[in-house]
Amino acid sequence: MKRAVVLLSGGIDSTTTLAIAITGGYEAYALSFDYGQRHQLETEAARRVATSLGAKDHRIAQIDLRVFGGSALTDDVAVPKRRSETEIAQGIPVTYVPARNTIFLAYALAWAEVISADDIFIGVNAIDYSGYPDCRPEFIEAFVKLADLGTKAGVEGRRFQIHAPLIKLSKAEIIRKGIELGVDFSLTHSCYDPKPDGLACGECDSCLLRLKGFREAGTNDPIRYATI
Amino acid sequence: MKRAVVLLSGGIDSTTTLAIAITGGYEAYALSFDYGQRHQLETEAARRVATSLGAKDHRIAQIDLRVFGGSALTDDVAVPKRRSETEIAQGIPVTYVPARNTIFLAYALAWAEVISADDIFIGVNAIDYSGYPDCRPEFIEAFVKLADLGTKAGVEGRRFQIHAPLIKLSKAEIIRKGIELGVDFSLTHSCYDPKPDGLACGECDSCLLRLKGFREAGTNDPIRYATI
Repeated sequence: MKRAVVLLSGGIDSTTTLAIAITGGYEAYALSFDYGQRHQLETEAARRVATSLGAKDHRIAQIDLRVFGGSALTDDVAVPKRRSETEIAQGIPVTYVPARNTIFLAYALAWAEVISADDIFIGVNAIDYSGYPDCRPEFIEAFVKLADLGTKAGVEGRRFQIHAPLIKLSKAEIIRKGIELGVDFSLTHSCYDPKPDGLACGECDSCLLRLKGFREAGTNDPIRYATI
Repeated sequence: MKRAVVLLSGGIDSTTTLAIAITGGYEAYALSFDYGQRHQLETEAARRVATSLGAKDHRIAQIDLRVFGGSALTDDVAVPKRRSETEIAQGIPVTYVPARNTIFLAYALAWAEVISADDIFIGVNAIDYSGYPDCRPEFIEAFVKLADLGTKAGVEGRRFQIHAPLIKLSKAEIIRKGIELGVDFSLTHSCYDPKPDGLACGECDSCLLRLKGFREAGTNDPIRYATI
């Protein structure tokens, strides 16, 4: 069975990506990060999802992104609330974490090399997250070149593949795809700024995109929100 | 004054690289990693060197490379001793850490983006470390492309430069260069497998290359060895 490392945050996109890898016949090695998120809900969701979908292994790497600052997701900067679709679509948001996907893919590559996997799955999406430079197809292609040049495996002739199966899908299409593959979205977590009791805020960009996605997919979001 | 992020392990190469960046007129932001080394001597050396050379800032990122295993530098695998020059030059050693320079450069890029630095210095060397794929010029070039595509700064038109000033120098040339720039090599640490009292073993690949370098540079290595 072919092995693949799958980056898993425990949100809608990475969960659907894990389901795609597994139904595609890969033995999935799920990789999550504890990077000084404001809350541990994200890694807990990743844990639930990995178990539920039958990942072969799941590791959580402790990494330190707070050491530099520079993002609302790692610093004490306010997460924007109730932004309109136009506002969300414009520019690079304060929730952008510098070089995050470069760091995540570098770790995925390290694990892939150790377990002799040639395939890495990442749930990046260039539609809803057009503001994030490291979610674009050309970024992924540049990483593949780097992976082949920068590893023992690459030098020995193995060729890495980075799969980004959601890159051109809308959130509604991702949700439909996930449901089709049997994903239980009640296990997932998306909110950037959850309430103390763990409920999603319903107002940050991530909640708004998620809710819109479920609306457009014509189905209910199974998680509970503080505001709804 | 132009800012640069300088990767600093506290060994001969990265210390000389830091001196090159500072004498080249950069305000240096030195970056080291605590990645589950078997010993803390490396980060202590980095601390001493950063202070001695006058880095503007020095941060040590805690990162987790043990989570995957796969290297004598992060696992309980024996570090090879007393290998001949031919043995050292051949193949990829067990001290190779999968995707290490990809991970280190990804972090350097994150910090560069936060402090608005366009320049990153890394002390890789393709002569003595020909066995490490991520020390080759083509790897560095591939990372520059990735950096421009994967960051907000790149999208906004800034162009990153990765400086690898030692890439074609021999160890002896690096040592001469360091001495010329006033580096105090007694502050540095290179050994992969130091003794409990902190003395360098004198027998691992890193010690052997260092000793050979000082010999060829025609000067004495100012650090103490357990075996000499």
